[in-house]
Amino acid sequence: MSYPNWLSQRTHLSGNRMALSFNEQEWTFSEINHIAEGYAGKLTALGIQPNSRVAILSKSHPEFVFVMYACLHIGCEMVMLNERLANAELAYQIDDSAADFVLVDDVLKEKVENRDPLLFSKIKEVAPLEFAPQTQWEQDRTISIMYTSGTTGNPKGVRQTAENHFSSAVSSALNIGFAPDDVWLCSVPLFHISGFSILMRSLVYGMGVRLHEKFDAKHSAEELCSGKVTHMSMVGVMLERVLRNIEESEMTVSPRFKAILAGGGPIPVAYIKRADECGISVLQTYGMTETSSQTTTLQSADAEKKIGSSGKPLFLYQVKIDGTDTPGEKGEILIHGPQVTPGYIGKFADRKVQKGGWFHTGDVGYMDEEGFLFVVDRRSDLIVSGGENIYPAEIEKVLLAHPAVREAGVCGVPNDEWGEVPAAYVVLNKEIDREELLDFCRGQLASYKLPKSIKEVESLPRNASNKLLRRELKAWN
Amino acid sequence: MSYPNWLSQRTHLSGNRMALSFNEQEWTFSEINHIAEGYAGKLTALGIQPNSRVAILSKSHPEFVFVMYACLHIGCEMVMLNERLANAELAYQIDDSAADFVLVDDVLKEKVENRDPLLFSKIKEVAPLEFAPQTQWEQDRTISIMYTSGTTGNPKGVRQTAENHFSSAVSSALNIGFAPDDVWLCSVPLFHISGFSILMRSLVYGMGVRLHEKFDAKHSAEELCSGKVTHMSMVGVMLERVLRNIEESEMTVSPRFKAILAGGGPIPVAYIKRADECGISVLQTYGMTETSSQTTTLQSADAEKKIGSSGKPLFLYQVKIDGTDTPGEKGEILIHGPQVTPGYIGKFADRKVQKGGWFHTGDVGYMDEEGFLFVVDRRSDLIVSGGENIYPAEIEKVLLAHPAVREAGVCGVPNDEWGEVPAAYVVLNKEIDREELLDFCRGQLASYKLPKSIKEVESLPRNASNKLLRRELKAWN
Repeated sequence: MSYPNWLSQRTHLSGNRMALSFNEQEWTFSEINHIAEGYAGKLTALGIQPNSRVAILSKSHPEFVFVMYACLHIGCEMVMLNERLANAELAYQIDDSAADFVLVDDVLKEKVENRDPLLFSKIKEVAPLEFAPQTQWEQDRTISIMYTSGTTGNPKGVRQTAENHFSSAVSSALNIGFAPDDVWLCSVPLFHISGFSILMRSLVYGMGVRLHEKFDAKHSAEELCSGKVTHMSMVGVMLERVLRNIEESEMTVSPRFKAILAGGGPIPVAYIKRADECGISVLQTYGMTETSSQTTTLQSADAEKKIGSSGKPLFLYQVKIDGTDTPGEKGEILIHGPQVTPGYIGKFADRKVQKGGWFHTGDVGYMDEEGFLFVVDRRSDLIVSGGENIYPAEIEKVLLAHPAVREAGVCGVPNDEWGEVPAAYVVLNKEIDREELLDFCRGQLASYKLPKSIKEVESLPRNASNKLLRRELKAWN
Repeated sequence: MSYPNWLSQRTHLSGNRMALSFNEQEWTFSEINHIAEGYAGKLTALGIQPNSRVAILSKSHPEFVFVMYACLHIGCEMVMLNERLANAELAYQIDDSAADFVLVDDVLKEKVENRDPLLFSKIKEVAPLEFAPQTQWEQDRTISIMYTSGTTGNPKGVRQTAENHFSSAVSSALNIGFAPDDVWLCSVPLFHISGFSILMRSLVYGMGVRLHEKFDAKHSAEELCSGKVTHMSMVGVMLERVLRNIEESEMTVSPRFKAILAGGGPIPVAYIKRADECGISVLQTYGMTETSSQTTTLQSADAEKKIGSSGKPLFLYQVKIDGTDTPGEKGEILIHGPQVTPGYIGKFADRKVQKGGWFHTGDVGYMDEEGFLFVVDRRSDLIVSGGENIYPAEIEKVLLAHPAVREAGVCGVPNDEWGEVPAAYVVLNKEIDREELLDFCRGQLASYKLPKSIKEVESLPRNASNKLLRRELKAWN
């Protein structure tokens, strides 16, 4: 099956509706499509073609959206680069994806300066070639590629197809409803599935996106009260700060506002109650890059009786626990549905992501009697810090590369501002200054991944087969 | 791709929501699923299996829904029989579809008495076998088969797959929006795509259906004012009568009511304006059995400036005019999308329904500059009478079978109550009484298809190749 080109069709059907708003500016679907076609002509002039693999590095602003929509029109595969990554991490992703082009927001050019970047300012100046958008998009076309790490510490490039994004958008609408005048506030990164999926929903629904360059609790609170937006995506730590801003102000949440979609782990019931008192419905979600955003959702109404649950799957999706149908019994969480990635690219291209039609998440959880999912251990002891996923193995790998370090173990520790932050434990070969070790890490890790503490220990907790027990590390805090 | 079983999944996700309401009774999704599973056990005991082809003949009431949902659970192909058809017409459809079983509402048993019917009352008495619903539904599984006629006068059985119904439900939601507490008033026949698609939307959305046994303008008007329903499907002639009832009463339409979906040809702008004054938004739709309900929709807001238009396609669909891209130029209307039937069954099983991925409707129309579709001639001079499609060729064929009739031509003439009714013109071999001719037709045609007038003429209007010009017949009225 194929889809009509989402941008062209959306423009044809509801061209006059607001597509994007940023600060005081607004663009309708017709306008944004016209701009995107213009950019597509310029990118074509620069040699970008259908199926070109194009890495993009940008801050969250309209030009990023224009460039992405141009790439959609041309039929590129977009490698979404995280602007917070260290240069070495970006280099790995650009190499691994074998990107044909690297499109870069000027303010970030130092991050990729030796990668022959095409700067946004340069793209703008190019004389466009004539350009005709593809009329049909194949279902299995790769729209986006996002890197995510795992147990090994080597980030894997996850393919997300048109069908993945479409079924994600539709399943979300079937769950929470949708009205043609909905507007989604996006203050989460566009290069993450959390933000990118808002753009996909915008095109599929004909829904407006109110874009913030970055998350600011006060600004978000104001928007929720202004009546300009109906939905917002966030992670738990953002919720508390937005709520506090509303509670401490004279403002009230607009009756037009419908719901917050909150990812990145369970939200304390106290927050849900506070949100409820503010008139905000909070939907807790469980999902990952490989499932193109949310797979299960917990309704606000169920939050109190199902504390810690991630809810139930969306209509098209199925979830089960590996090897058991018994309520309460723990096992690996398996996911089935059209939102699941067909696989990885680059050095992990051969890795099968599904076994017998089921995606193995690596997360451990259980179902209760009523079929509510509870996630007990995130895969690979994942640390979720301010909405960013941090894999301990990635940090350990860097620490171990230093000659003074014999063994390294990293785990997440609670943090008021970010939810969790990484903490490191090291067994040393010889004395070394903590700052020197951090400096060593700095060039190779995004700053949010730098261990917030490094403690020397005599040995690390390991099991019989010598596997590091990161959960025991946690107890040391 | 496959779907989770819609009934089981819907019950798992929103089992406590209202699924069906009829008079004073209500059933949640859990309840209706439980009842359907019970019926499935009984039908299994009677020999019905996955892939059994099951013809169903029933009036619109909950038991019909229970039986259909049981068939969905088992994995049957349901041949939806129209209770208004004459016995000979029903016999044709049962034969052509080679139905393995004929399930019949007791009050209709005389219509199919020599077809070994399984009466609903008998089904109820059967001791059920143990039954486990299918967990997955394949996308290309045939859910329903509906007969529709054409130029030849031989009704063709149209396959409608799970994907057809799913994409129709989703496309409609993306167009008009959807909220989890929506309730659709169904007073159109469940055996037609207009009514059946409401059930499909109910399962896919988790939406309630308020079922009326038959259309009653006053009752419908009351429901729109009661706040019990948010949507209603109808044809144009029904709209005027509902509006009149509201206007002549003390009632006002509930603010909860959202929209009327109106099919069966353009609605006079005067009605749209009257509806608007009552606070009702009317969405005019164009679709057919082969496209599993609506393909294009005209928004209320566009009705006045686009008088007579059928609007624009839904998000997943595309419409074009055969052989031309020029606005205003007429040609056959072609349709592309996942809602288009994969084909017919029975004696038309070999007929290809798509050429190069496009379904040829047989309808003639054009697009205006802005891409709005205008249907100029319905295929085969289709007569739409009170929501039923009548194909002139079908009536002509019956008339011609009478020895006194040498030639016959049928066309639609305007009628206040039904929109259109069929009128016949005959060239006779010998004198015959009109009543005798009508009696002859009665056993072979549903009563709504009986010509409301039969006039003798000396010759019929024909073109050079002797093809009957039904449009010229119309001018004779």
